[in-house]
Amino acid sequence: MDKILRINMGPNGEPSYTTEPIGDFAGLGGRGLTSAIISKQVPPTCHALGEENKLVIAPGLLGGTTGAMSGRVSVGCKSPLTGGIKEANAGGQPGQMIARLGYAAIVLEGKPAADTLYKIHISADGVKIMPDPDLKMLGNYDTVEKMKQAYGNKIACVSIGQAGEMKLAAATVAFTDMEQRPARHAARGGVGAVMGSKGVKVIVIDDTGMSMRSPKDPEKFKAANRTFVDGLKKHPVTGQGLPAYGTNVLTNVVNEAGAYPTYNFKTGRFSGAAAISGETQAETITSRGGKATHGCHRGCVIRCSGIWHDKDGHYLTKQPEYETVWSHGGNCGIDDLDAIAMMDRLDDDYGIDTIEMGATIGVAMDAGLLEFGDADGAINLVKEVGKGTPLGRILGSGAAVTGKVFGVERVPVVKNQAMPAYDPRAVQGMGVTYATSTMGADHTAGYAVTANLLGVGGTVDPLSPKGQVELSRNLQYATAAIDSTGMCLFIAFAVLDQPETFQAMIDMINTFHGLELTAEDVTALGKKVTKMERDFNEAAGFSKKDDRLPDYFLKEGFAPHNVTFTVSDDELDDVFSDL
Amino acid sequence: MDKILRINMGPNGEPSYTTEPIGDFAGLGGRGLTSAIISKQVPPTCHALGEENKLVIAPGLLGGTTGAMSGRVSVGCKSPLTGGIKEANAGGQPGQMIARLGYAAIVLEGKPAADTLYKIHISADGVKIMPDPDLKMLGNYDTVEKMKQAYGNKIACVSIGQAGEMKLAAATVAFTDMEQRPARHAARGGVGAVMGSKGVKVIVIDDTGMSMRSPKDPEKFKAANRTFVDGLKKHPVTGQGLPAYGTNVLTNVVNEAGAYPTYNFKTGRFSGAAAISGETQAETITSRGGKATHGCHRGCVIRCSGIWHDKDGHYLTKQPEYETVWSHGGNCGIDDLDAIAMMDRLDDDYGIDTIEMGATIGVAMDAGLLEFGDADGAINLVKEVGKGTPLGRILGSGAAVTGKVFGVERVPVVKNQAMPAYDPRAVQGMGVTYATSTMGADHTAGYAVTANLLGVGGTVDPLSPKGQVELSRNLQYATAAIDSTGMCLFIAFAVLDQPETFQAMIDMINTFHGLELTAEDVTALGKKVTKMERDFNEAAGFSKKDDRLPDYFLKEGFAPHNVTFTVSDDELDDVFSDL
Repeated sequence: MDKILRINMGPNGEPSYTTEPIGDFAGLGGRGLTSAIISKQVPPTCHALGEENKLVIAPGLLGGTTGAMSGRVSVGCKSPLTGGIKEANAGGQPGQMIARLGYAAIVLEGKPAADTLYKIHISADGVKIMPDPDLKMLGNYDTVEKMKQAYGNKIACVSIGQAGEMKLAAATVAFTDMEQRPARHAARGGVGAVMGSKGVKVIVIDDTGMSMRSPKDPEKFKAANRTFVDGLKKHPVTGQGLPAYGTNVLTNVVNEAGAYPTYNFKTGRFSGAAAISGETQAETITSRGGKATHGCHRGCVIRCSGIWHDKDGHYLTKQPEYETVWSHGGNCGIDDLDAIAMMDRLDDDYGIDTIEMGATIGVAMDAGLLEFGDADGAINLVKEVGKGTPLGRILGSGAAVTGKVFGVERVPVVKNQAMPAYDPRAVQGMGVTYATSTMGADHTAGYAVTANLLGVGGTVDPLSPKGQVELSRNLQYATAAIDSTGMCLFIAFAVLDQPETFQAMIDMINTFHGLELTAEDVTALGKKVTKMERDFNEAAGFSKKDDRLPDYFLKEGFAPHNVTFTVSDDELDDVFSDL
Repeated sequence: MDKILRINMGPNGEPSYTTEPIGDFAGLGGRGLTSAIISKQVPPTCHALGEENKLVIAPGLLGGTTGAMSGRVSVGCKSPLTGGIKEANAGGQPGQMIARLGYAAIVLEGKPAADTLYKIHISADGVKIMPDPDLKMLGNYDTVEKMKQAYGNKIACVSIGQAGEMKLAAATVAFTDMEQRPARHAARGGVGAVMGSKGVKVIVIDDTGMSMRSPKDPEKFKAANRTFVDGLKKHPVTGQGLPAYGTNVLTNVVNEAGAYPTYNFKTGRFSGAAAISGETQAETITSRGGKATHGCHRGCVIRCSGIWHDKDGHYLTKQPEYETVWSHGGNCGIDDLDAIAMMDRLDDDYGIDTIEMGATIGVAMDAGLLEFGDADGAINLVKEVGKGTPLGRILGSGAAVTGKVFGVERVPVVKNQAMPAYDPRAVQGMGVTYATSTMGADHTAGYAVTANLLGVGGTVDPLSPKGQVELSRNLQYATAAIDSTGMCLFIAFAVLDQPETFQAMIDMINTFHGLELTAEDVTALGKKVTKMERDFNEAAGFSKKDDRLPDYFLKEGFAPHNVTFTVSDDELDDVFSDL
């Protein structure tokens, strides 16, 4: 995993590729590597869909190893949604396989001169870049099916659906899961539109003949991994809540806390929450023969994912995640798990970010296009995106554009990216993260729900501004570091609460790579990555004013606590004052 | 003219109004007054369509007098298009009549609680604010017709069409001309959307019983006015070119200079230019019984406006201006004056900015929605806006949104506002104005075409970066001052070249108001207004990076001169370094 694969898509000459040693980027993986390459090699003021932008796909530092939780893969670029730097990561199998093929990163560069659509095949035998007009405007599911027919059942795929081909700002990059279904997505910020602008429909990964990557010190690595896994199993969130009910365990928790954004962020409790909760979801899944506990990639021991069957017991989609259930559910006043699962499937097939899509439907409901609670209407709106109608293109461009086009005032976005499933007034630590993250509104960038609502990593009153800046700052640095290991962010629950689990994570990296990193080095890495990203954004034109929530969160009281967002502008400007 | 009329549209209680003395705003008119009110009384981070924004309508310092060229009226607000401060001005009769009724400004505030549409009647008898659901989704022409039926033939109207009601970011505010047609527009930056957000469809002005405003020194004012008019008649641009051929006299000039943005800013000369030139236009108009020389308001002595008849000799629209002929013409590869006039009529009726609309069609052509040169297709696109279809809403939201939704890279905007009819590579002084104006890309903000192409106010090589910053800076300050007098900007041609005409303009203001302003005071006023506007924009979130042209103008050579925009970022940052 010491090579970078660069694939140049044009416009001068036919697409071609080169490999090069990782060089100066050594020691970086996942988000650390994608952000380093973007920040060094992409002009911040370039057009996100232009030839100067790059799409970087990078497994983590422990990708392709036997280490638990190491299969996440990062996708980085300049974002067509936010206009700033972007990293979105996903589970699925391609990350592990790219790592085993020896690539620290695949970089898509340039763009084709003509409107040609390509597939790329990467194996131990090399790289093939082939036009394939038959793939035009296929969904992710059909695309993967065609690849399986052509290349067999041992492949993994990285692909885009119709949304990515249309270069819509909510388009995702899909990664196939263990069952070879394109159900895991690097979803946020329009990374799929950038892949679409490069003319690449699908990258087929075949690691036949490659073996697991070997640690420098196999025995110590194995021991560290065991301690790490024990820690994850011991913690109530990673050992019990997430495996049993998946991420959707949060619906009841967040709704109970009065922080569940309902009806396009108008109130904090949804009357239909129980009907779409993780508990109900798991029961439904089990009764239909699906799987309520399942990993999103091999090597996962938390297994918060699952498989959703329709009423007839047939596979429809992965178990919709909490954010998806919320965005299409409570946020739109919809309490029907089947309707939500249908939208999840459509989103995955077209390749659209489920958070952005649900938030956008909420805005469309405020615009009067349909009533809150209209599940069929919402499904039809998602279908518009797949069809590529003008309305579909508006919606697929995200909540900010939809708000502009329909003259809606209440649009819950920061840096043009839609807020996820925690109202920033009732979880003020999340508000700080939404406002200041380099990524736009992003819950994964600094998940203050931990100390604000879950009592993990300490306790900070969610309704008060006090302590939120420090909480968000520390989490944002820690997250940037974890995202750079390529490990699943959910290890953070155990790592934050259990010093020995944190140490085991560091030991895994050290014993694998022969390093001597300390806890301080990990924080330093997180700060370094954050600084690169902030510098890129500043050069792209972001100012302090971009580190703000929309005005109405500071003015509209949010029931049931009747709170507004009270962290001051000065405090927000203080978040990264130590960089 | 020492009162401000404030009309509060809600949401608490029924719409109501108050009048107050002009107070601290005394001495300001037009843009000076709109920008002062917005900068003092509108929170820069508010939503442009929210209740905190205000729409300010202000005649100039000599509005309602016998002074020549004094009838322009300014409309100010926070712009839904740019997100910054906005002033757009227009001719027509309402400015003079508002001034004679004694109002220095009408300020629309708040917004109605319900989706009610209002008309407002203002006369010497007071102000009436009345719901009128019959006006819903009428065009400007039908709206004005209904007002004439209700209130007679002595009124003037300030209205919005369908675009303003839909709160589209390219929506205008229409002002009736001398023939009571809604053909003069405060067009740029979505001022009509803000009027729509206030629930105000039309303001009917009736100045029955009011007389011309009296100067402090009538004899000296008359003498200054005479000198001023003589100066305008003597100058070749204001005395000959503009009266004979209207603003469209520029088509041949700019095309000849290789600076005419053709096919969405791809090349600098249009093969169809002669067919849509001012010369051809004037000939066509005259042959059909229209008027090729005509004022846009009473008191105009330049008379660059005109009246366009269709092939059957019936009134269709005002004589389309140069910018309109270009935007729908050469920019879209269309060389058909009748098609252009039809789009001008539709734009005026729906209430859409002709520059933004034409630039948007150019972007839509680049997106592949229709071919360059397809006049019928272009007309149909404009009609989509009137119908309020999703496609129409995209287009009516302007070029930047259209580019985003359709994934187009080459979008000629600054601060989200479309560039007018001079390519910034071949008229680099205009490029400096586009980049740095507080208004977004705006030719009127600092019309460097003067010294760059016309040899007015000196000579500066249009293809070189040298001298452009100083030229643009001086013009931007001078323009901010002239816009604050309420005089037509076209007086600048004579004022720049003829010291005695400049002095006569100052004498008019001094003898009317009993002041002793000097030339320095005028420049100081321009700087003061510019500073207020820059400060508002900075507080709204603009940074240096917003004072830039899109990257491709710095990279793509522009034929026939094969030039790129070469004024450096440092030079752009120097434009307002003296503020």
